[in-house]
Amino acid sequence: MAQKRFKNWKKPKIKHGELTKWNWMVQHPENLKLGQETDIGAFTYINAKHGVTIGNNVEIGSHCSIYSLSTIDHKKGRVILKRNCRIGSHSTIMPGVTIGTNSVVGAHSFVNSNISDNVIAVGCPVKVLRKIKQH
Amino acid sequence: MAQKRFKNWKKPKIKHGELTKWNWMVQHPENLKLGQETDIGAFTYINAKHGVTIGNNVEIGSHCSIYSLSTIDHKKGRVILKRNCRIGSHSTIMPGVTIGTNSVVGAHSFVNSNISDNVIAVGCPVKVLRKIKQH
Amino acid sequence: MAQKRFKNWKKPKIKHGELTKWNWMVQHPENLKLGQETDIGAFTYINAKHGVTIGNNVEIGSHCSIYSLSTIDHKKGRVILKRNCRIGSHSTIMPGVTIGTNSVVGAHSFVNSNISDNVIAVGCPVKVLRKIKQH
Repeated sequence: MAQKRFKNWKKPKIKHGELTKWNWMVQHPENLKLGQETDIGAFTYINAKHGVTIGNNVEIGSHCSIYSLSTIDHKKGRVILKRNCRIGSHSTIMPGVTIGTNSVVGAHSFVNSNISDNVIAVGCPVKVLRKIKQH
Repeated sequence: MAQKRFKNWKKPKIKHGELTKWNWMVQHPENLKLGQETDIGAFTYINAKHGVTIGNNVEIGSHCSIYSLSTIDHKKGRVILKRNCRIGSHSTIMPGVTIGTNSVVGAHSFVNSNISDNVIAVGCPVKVLRKIKQH
Repeated sequence: MAQKRFKNWKKPKIKHGELTKWNWMVQHPENLKLGQETDIGAFTYINAKHGVTIGNNVEIGSHCSIYSLSTIDHKKGRVILKRNCRIGSHSTIMPGVTIGTNSVVGAHSFVNSNISDNVIAVGCPVKVLRKIKQH
């Protein structure tokens, strides 16, 4: 179960292309669905043009990039970060990728494939390391 | 051939050490030659002290660092990103490096050697994967 | 010996959660001990909640993350960067880690263990490559 980290979580104010109070930024925030008690690190960039869904209690580290559109390789598609998953710092999530519930993506990962629920995955490109033990 | 991405590309306003409208930054912009219809991602940092040349239609992802000066290892030298090359997110380009025309550097690469034209390269340190098929 | 890089180094103004003049940021700066003639790159993020000590002449590249608290894996502990060590760009330093005097951490490293004095280390996770030759 997710730890209780927030006493008074409020949905952050997000404007297209501008740094939030925490110095992360979103393009096309009208296509971002942001869950409750989510936490996004400094210098993270989200391109929500083709849709980004971030479930409740998701944590994203600093310096991540979440791309629903990657102009460099002409890929696009909704990114879904399911409830309570965690994305380590300096990771890139490519268009169309879904990260499963409770799963953890290690820092410095390049995620170009779906990650199932309840696993730990890491690497460039990302590979599943093991299942998370259920409590 | 490069896709037509811009209807009304304008040269961005760049001031030494300040974030641009797109939240990337340049030091010593007087030594940056920036081509037409270039695209630079959020949180990318360019140190142009010893010269950085970015050709037409070049794309640079988010969270890249382009160093013509690396104080950490006392290296310096002009960086040249040739026409239509693309640099994936979270990549570092070291002093003196040239990236060839149309070439693609994959995300999360550390580029400390020249990359020839028309290839795909990736890794830490970067290695050429293959030639790009000509259309 | 560290090169003389600064003529007039001054301690930077740091406010919790705000970008400095050089576009890096610190959370909980009251728990940051910052040495003289240190140099920190753009888009670097320091979470000093549980203490970060940065010795004299330390250099930190762009896009680094220095965590005394990592909420994603529930780790915490003081980070110590000893005198004259250097941290390459895009590196992550995890809670409780000490980097030794004069040591160099290569770019794109994930540092989750202590690094002794006078070595070069690199990788995800970081590994020591070799000793630095003494002059």
